[in-house]
Amino acid sequence: MSVADEISKSNEVYVVKRGAKLNLEEIGPKPTKKVALICCMDARIDAFSAFGLKEGESHVIRNGGGRASDSIRSLVISQQQLGTDEIIIMHHTDCGFFTFSESEFRSTLKSKGFSGPDVDAMSFMPMSSKDIDQNVKEDVDYLKDHPLIKKESKISGWVHELNDGSVRRVV
Amino acid sequence: MSVADEISKSNEVYVVKRGAKLNLEEIGPKPTKKVALICCMDARIDAFSAFGLKEGESHVIRNGGGRASDSIRSLVISQQQLGTDEIIIMHHTDCGFFTFSESEFRSTLKSKGFSGPDVDAMSFMPMSSKDIDQNVKEDVDYLKDHPLIKKESKISGWVHELNDGSVRRVV
Repeated sequence: MSVADEISKSNEVYVVKRGAKLNLEEIGPKPTKKVALICCMDARIDAFSAFGLKEGESHVIRNGGGRASDSIRSLVISQQQLGTDEIIIMHHTDCGFFTFSESEFRSTLKSKGFSGPDVDAMSFMPMSSKDIDQNVKEDVDYLKDHPLIKKESKISGWVHELNDGSVRRVV
Repeated sequence: MSVADEISKSNEVYVVKRGAKLNLEEIGPKPTKKVALICCMDARIDAFSAFGLKEGESHVIRNGGGRASDSIRSLVISQQQLGTDEIIIMHHTDCGFFTFSESEFRSTLKSKGFSGPDVDAMSFMPMSSKDIDQNVKEDVDYLKDHPLIKKESKISGWVHELNDGSVRRVV
């Protein structure tokens, strides 16, 4: 038994619920609010509910840690092909990316028998500081300085508190 | 006025709604269903609702196109640090990544004045085929062959139909 076996059944509820709504293809692929939100892949974050998004409004980019440096490809397409001009970076408390260092993780992979160039070459992007606000600021600065991100972009950085679900703007 | 200005207000509704629920930090960062779901950043996809997920159950990795090759860093951490062993790849109809080629996009960037090594070196990962099922199969095969993905992983590939919200398993 796998989660894949449950997806079709879970999805049936959604299909019935949105039955009376518009065909989403009719909205088109351009986010109506011209924004891309970046957050962590963390299983506890229901991005649409937590950040008040509705279908069609915002690109949602999610990766381990919600790192800006792992979002550039997607952001460039979001801005140049799909017309967004605002970026919201949302880190969160109790993130797994505070719990390991790059060198520790490479050793773990090797001890488990993984090999290949990626073991030493890939950046796994743990947080550089234990200070969550500091990481948010670094990610915002990274985007502001990146040559492929529109200079006129509105960029803000936030923390999502998993203890009570609230958000707090850092920058 | 930016979307960032609305986030705090939108989030207040969520905080009140989940008031009676558990503190999400108590669930911990390990997905309870041991699964990571990969889908596109497309604004029309409400991943939790469409795929029947609840907070705590599944990592959600989202990038432009929902490409496997842009998810490896997150997946390796998901599997090795956070205990997942299943991967669900979910592409969707009407995806923006069918609408451009790598070379066209590089020309677009240059014509807009963007420069730097990334313009020529970064892969922007448009779909390799106009056949959506074929891209899903390629992404599943890519993961099955990747040296940093657990050999014993359960991996399935799907298409999310935006016209009616349904899902269809491809592989």
